[in-house]
Amino acid sequence: MTAEPLAEFLNRARVQVDEALARFLPAPPACPVIISEAMRYSVFAGGKRLRPTLTLAAADAVTRVGRPGADADSGDGHDPFPLALPVACAIEMIHTYSLIHDDLPAMDDDTLRRGRPKLHTVYGEGIAILAGDGLHAEAFHLLAREPAGDEPDLARRKLRVIARIAEAAGASGMVGGQAIDLQAAGQAPGHAVTLDADGLRVMHARKTGALIRASAVSGAIMAGATDALVDAIDRYAIDVGLAFQIVDDILDVEGDPASLGKTAGKDAAGAKPTYPALFGLDRSRALAAECVARARRALDDAGLTAGWLAPIAEWVVSRKN
Amino acid sequence: MTAEPLAEFLNRARVQVDEALARFLPAPPACPVIISEAMRYSVFAGGKRLRPTLTLAAADAVTRVGRPGADADSGDGHDPFPLALPVACAIEMIHTYSLIHDDLPAMDDDTLRRGRPKLHTVYGEGIAILAGDGLHAEAFHLLAREPAGDEPDLARRKLRVIARIAEAAGASGMVGGQAIDLQAAGQAPGHAVTLDADGLRVMHARKTGALIRASAVSGAIMAGATDALVDAIDRYAIDVGLAFQIVDDILDVEGDPASLGKTAGKDAAGAKPTYPALFGLDRSRALAAECVARARRALDDAGLTAGWLAPIAEWVVSRKN
Repeated sequence: MTAEPLAEFLNRARVQVDEALARFLPAPPACPVIISEAMRYSVFAGGKRLRPTLTLAAADAVTRVGRPGADADSGDGHDPFPLALPVACAIEMIHTYSLIHDDLPAMDDDTLRRGRPKLHTVYGEGIAILAGDGLHAEAFHLLAREPAGDEPDLARRKLRVIARIAEAAGASGMVGGQAIDLQAAGQAPGHAVTLDADGLRVMHARKTGALIRASAVSGAIMAGATDALVDAIDRYAIDVGLAFQIVDDILDVEGDPASLGKTAGKDAAGAKPTYPALFGLDRSRALAAECVARARRALDDAGLTAGWLAPIAEWVVSRKN
Repeated sequence: MTAEPLAEFLNRARVQVDEALARFLPAPPACPVIISEAMRYSVFAGGKRLRPTLTLAAADAVTRVGRPGADADSGDGHDPFPLALPVACAIEMIHTYSLIHDDLPAMDDDTLRRGRPKLHTVYGEGIAILAGDGLHAEAFHLLAREPAGDEPDLARRKLRVIARIAEAAGASGMVGGQAIDLQAAGQAPGHAVTLDADGLRVMHARKTGALIRASAVSGAIMAGATDALVDAIDRYAIDVGLAFQIVDDILDVEGDPASLGKTAGKDAAGAKPTYPALFGLDRSRALAAECVARARRALDDAGLTAGWLAPIAEWVVSRKN
């Protein structure tokens, strides 16, 4: 039985991820002081840690299937956290690098990030680009070396996770989606595009959806999930990612800047395509709720009913920032 | 006996690397057209392919040790190219991403790259940043999936290579060296440094040396080299990398822009620390020759006398661009 409320799980996941990130990130004398400071400035800027939380929750959930009442982290030999924690940290490093590059003047050029001055206003644009590049490389360095050990099965899982995360971060995933976003915002000279509802969905599926899917799927793979469970968690994560993005668009319209940590109304100001702009607020909220319902069905059909995956889907649409 | 002259090996390596890169790089519809075009624009800009050539030459060399007279690619079951080719391509993708980001206005802001307009002048800065990020991620995607197969030994080699390349590309390697370079050039506001001869050596060891070492070492690992051979090739590559950088500095002073493909005299104009500035041209040439001698000794001591590693070291210091 899962006695632990979601809020406590989220807090436990965040504390473990933050502690592990501080340990895994390179530090002087292995690397220059400036790059270590710049990477940590952005990594410890107070993010929600949604992606690493999904990784840990997915790893936890697959160890509970067919073991009703079992507590995945009760010391019964099935604690999935040590296997999934390095992957969770690597994904947060990739997510953070993408935020740093997205904040650059040549890209989104937002005025606030998580309520603090953007990295490039503190260290200059050059160091900001490099801090992003450094986090990107260090994520794969971490994925290749942790958890340590060269048992054939562990090596295979690690390679599968690296392939999946790299693909999600690359040209067909996050980077590709960001390129479409720049084209839609008129920031790719000579290559402008206009997005309809389907184009908007594809853009988000690449830009944020791919890495959110990889986050959940990687946790499942590290915990030894069957292909059927990996597939169910992938379907769950597709809808959680889309719901997350729709709610992001809604919060941009109606959120207040203090709790958002960024400038509300920015999407409308930049004429970027959004769900509220295309469908209105009420229909956008209904679409987000449909996503959560589909995500729950994917879990139920696979017997993934214990753990925090379903509560996380609810949290994603009820959040205020 | 190695009957093939160096020029023919270099050409064969380049043709195979270019063909494989065209095949390995993602293309539409898997990724958006613009990001595919931008990545290929820079990858196929006519580079020397030094790093992938070192990867292939190192893989070749270790299969010849203790087999005098054998031809590593004679069809005797020891052809190392298929094992090392994906690694060679991944390293060239990482090298290309670093050139794209290095060319950005916030970084080196050079006027020519390999004799062609810089990527960001063609597609805009945002797409250029993303094309670099895309190549970075795709390199690790490639390393994790090729060569295909999940034999335990192959999986272990791939993970070792991924860890080594990611570390070389990251905060303690290429990115860290580039950060020091920005600090030395006064482009990191509030964090300027002045480099002496030792500081210059450390900067280059990180900025270009680490990835050159990883290029050679990765080829050796993929070909199944013993730890002793990997170590010898690492020592060889440390000196090849340093010689390459010293010659780069010399060519910047005395090269003509037409054969260089970039603006000569640029280092002096930007007051960047260089070997000729610190030691003069004659002493710089002598230092490069000492590097080559040390590199040859590392090969000789390990019995790595057949193949193209020694000729490549000579080529690095005799090149005119």
